Amino acid sequence: MRCTEVRMSSYPDGDVGPAHFGLADVELPAPRPGEVLVRNTWTSVDPGLRLRMRRHAPAGYFAAFPLDAPLDGVLTVGEVLESRADGFAAGDTVWHPFGWRTHAVVDASATYMNGAGSLRVLDTASTPASWYLGPLGAIGLTAWAGLHVVGALGGGERVWVSAAGGAVGSLVAQVAVLLGHRVVASAGSAEKVAWLRDEVGVEAAFDYREEPPAQALARLAPEGLDVYFDNVGGDHLEAALDAMRPHGRIALCGSVSDYESEPRGPRNLFLATAKHLTLAGFRGSLHLDLLDDMQRRLGGWLRDGVVAHRQSVYEGLSQAPVALQDMLAGRTTGKTLVRL
Amino acid sequence: MRCTEVRMSSYPDGDVGPAHFGLADVELPAPRPGEVLVRNTWTSVDPGLRLRMRRHAPAGYFAAFPLDAPLDGVLTVGEVLESRADGFAAGDTVWHPFGWRTHAVVDASATYMNGAGSLRVLDTASTPASWYLGPLGAIGLTAWAGLHVVGALGGGERVWVSAAGGAVGSLVAQVAVLLGHRVVASAGSAEKVAWLRDEVGVEAAFDYREEPPAQALARLAPEGLDVYFDNVGGDHLEAALDAMRPHGRIALCGSVSDYESEPRGPRNLFLATAKHLTLAGFRGSLHLDLLDDMQRRLGGWLRDGVVAHRQSVYEGLSQAPVALQDMLAGRTTGKTLVRL
Repeated sequence: MRCTEVRMSSYPDGDVGPAHFGLADVELPAPRPGEVLVRNTWTSVDPGLRLRMRRHAPAGYFAAFPLDAPLDGVLTVGEVLESRADGFAAGDTVWHPFGWRTHAVVDASATYMNGAGSLRVLDTASTPASWYLGPLGAIGLTAWAGLHVVGALGGGERVWVSAAGGAVGSLVAQVAVLLGHRVVASAGSAEKVAWLRDEVGVEAAFDYREEPPAQALARLAPEGLDVYFDNVGGDHLEAALDAMRPHGRIALCGSVSDYESEPRGPRNLFLATAKHLTLAGFRGSLHLDLLDDMQRRLGGWLRDGVVAHRQSVYEGLSQAPVALQDMLAGRTTGKTLVRL
Repeated sequence: MRCTEVRMSSYPDGDVGPAHFGLADVELPAPRPGEVLVRNTWTSVDPGLRLRMRRHAPAGYFAAFPLDAPLDGVLTVGEVLESRADGFAAGDTVWHPFGWRTHAVVDASATYMNGAGSLRVLDTASTPASWYLGPLGAIGLTAWAGLHVVGALGGGERVWVSAAGGAVGSLVAQVAVLLGHRVVASAGSAEKVAWLRDEVGVEAAFDYREEPPAQALARLAPEGLDVYFDNVGGDHLEAALDAMRPHGRIALCGSVSDYESEPRGPRNLFLATAKHLTLAGFRGSLHLDLLDDMQRRLGGWLRDGVVAHRQSVYEGLSQAPVALQDMLAGRTTGKTLVRL
C-alpha cells in the first residue's frame, strides 16, 4: 500500500510554514496479526503541534518531531481497510495517533498518547466522524476537563475565556454560558467577537487586537474574575492575575502566545500568593475518565444545536502545513482540520 | 504616653537598609472606650514587609507603607497597660497589628489583617510570648496552611522546601519530616544545610549559593518531586517546574528572590499544563480556620522539643531596619524578631 506522508524538513527559527515541510511517498507493510490498516479521512491540526516543531523541545512531554520522518502522536480519523485484530472490521470508523499521512498500519492493542490516542471504534450513526477530532475528542475533553479542574461547573461565577473563537475556547465559552456562568470572552477578530456576543450569548466580549486585555477587563468586569480559562498565556495571563478576585482559579490550558517566541512567565505571579489563587495546569488526555460523560452530554447538545461547533477545513494532505500556519496566525475559526 | 515609632523616610531603589528609615517620638492619646493601651514587647520582621516598601506597590493587597508614618499591619506582641475593652485586662499578653513602635492604642473590636491581626489574648502559661510571632502565629499558620493547600499531609511523597533555614521553611521541613515525607531542603549557607541534614533529618539538603537548584535537584531527587513548597520564586520555581512529576503540586508561599528586583515569571510555566501541575497561592491569614488545630499540634511538638524553633533576635526598636536588611540578605536564621 502506497502512503503519502507529511514530514518536517527543518525546524523554524520564527513562524512555522509550508517551507518547513515536505511530502514523501512510502510503501506500507501489510498489517500483521493484531494490526489494522486504516485509510485516513480526517487529520487534526492542533496548536500544541507547534511545541514539537522546535529543535530543543523540552524533554519528555512534548518531544520534538524528528526531521524527515512522519509525525507520530497526531490524532486522526479514518476507515479500516483491513483488520487482523479482534474488535475491528473493515468499514469501521476509528481514531488513532498516526495523522498527517494518507494511510497507517496501527497496533490495535497498543496504548497511545496515555490512552487518548489508542485505536478506538467511533459511533458515526448520528455523529459526523470529524467531530471526534474536535468537540467529541481531544478538544471537547480539554474543554470539559478545564472546567472540571477549576471546579467551575457550578454556575453564577464570572469566567473569562481567552481564545474563545478557537477550538477549545469556543466550546468552553458555550458550555460555561449553558451552565449559568457570567462569561467574558476574548478573541482576535471582530467577526469572532460578534459571534460570541450575538450567537453564543456571552455577557461581554472583546477583541484583544483592538484593546489590551487588562484594559478590556477593567471595563467589562470591574468587579473581577472568579475563573480564568487560559488558552493564551503572556499578557492575557498577566491581565487575569491582576483581575482575579481572592480565591480565584485559573485553568492553564495552553499558552499559544509563547509557542513561537521565547516564553516569558507572568511577572505578577506573586499575586497568586496575595490573592490565594490556584493555577491548575491540565491536559484533556489525562482526564480520560471524563470522556464518556463528555461525549454523552456535549454530544447531545451538539446534535440538538444548543452548542455550535465550527470547523476550518482544508482539503488535501498537502494543505496541512498551510492549515497549521493559518491557525497559529489566528486566521482559522473553531477546530482546524484537513480532509484527506 | 510617649511612643517611639519607626517610619520609612524614603523608598529604596535597590536593597533596603537603615538609611530608608528614621525614628519619631509621638504622644499617644489615652484609650477610649473599647480600646486598650499596649506596651509592645516583641515585634515581627517579615520578608513580606519588603513588598510594601516600594513606591509602586500593587494596589489592594500589599499596599505601600506611606512615608513618614508608622508601619501598620505588622504583627506585634505586647502587654496591656490599660484596658477600656471587655475581655482584656491590664497584664494580659496580646497580639495586634501595630508593630515597629513601642506602644499602641488598639481598637479591641476591629478586624485587622483579615482577622489574623485582630487583638487577641495569648496563653503564655507554658508558651513564650515570642512564639506567637513565629511558630504559633502567622509563621506557623503559613507553614500549616501551605502543607494543607497542596494536600501533602499524607506522607511518603517527595517534597522540596526552599528557604528551609528561614522562619516558615524550617517549620515546613520539620513538619514534613514528622509526617513521613521524603524531604529535600535548600538554604543559603553551609550552617543551615548542616542543621537541616543533621538535626532536622531531611533526606537531602543543598546550599543554593554553591549549586544551582536545577543541578542540585537532578543530583538529589532524580526521580522528581511530588510537592514543592516555594518560598523563593525565580530560579527556584523554574527548577521545581522542571523537576515536578506529573500531577505535582506547588505551594506558592512567597518569592523573596523577586522582592528586591523587577520580578520575572517562570519561563517554563507551560510545564504546568504539560505535567498537570497545580500551583496554589495562599496566605496563612486566609486560613484562620486552621489556627487552633495548628497551635495545638505544633505547640505540643514545640514544647516537647520534637520541632525546633530558631529565632534571630535583635535588641531595641532602632535595630528593626538592620534586622530587616539582614533577613533579606539571608544573614538571619529562623524567625527574625526585635525585642523592645
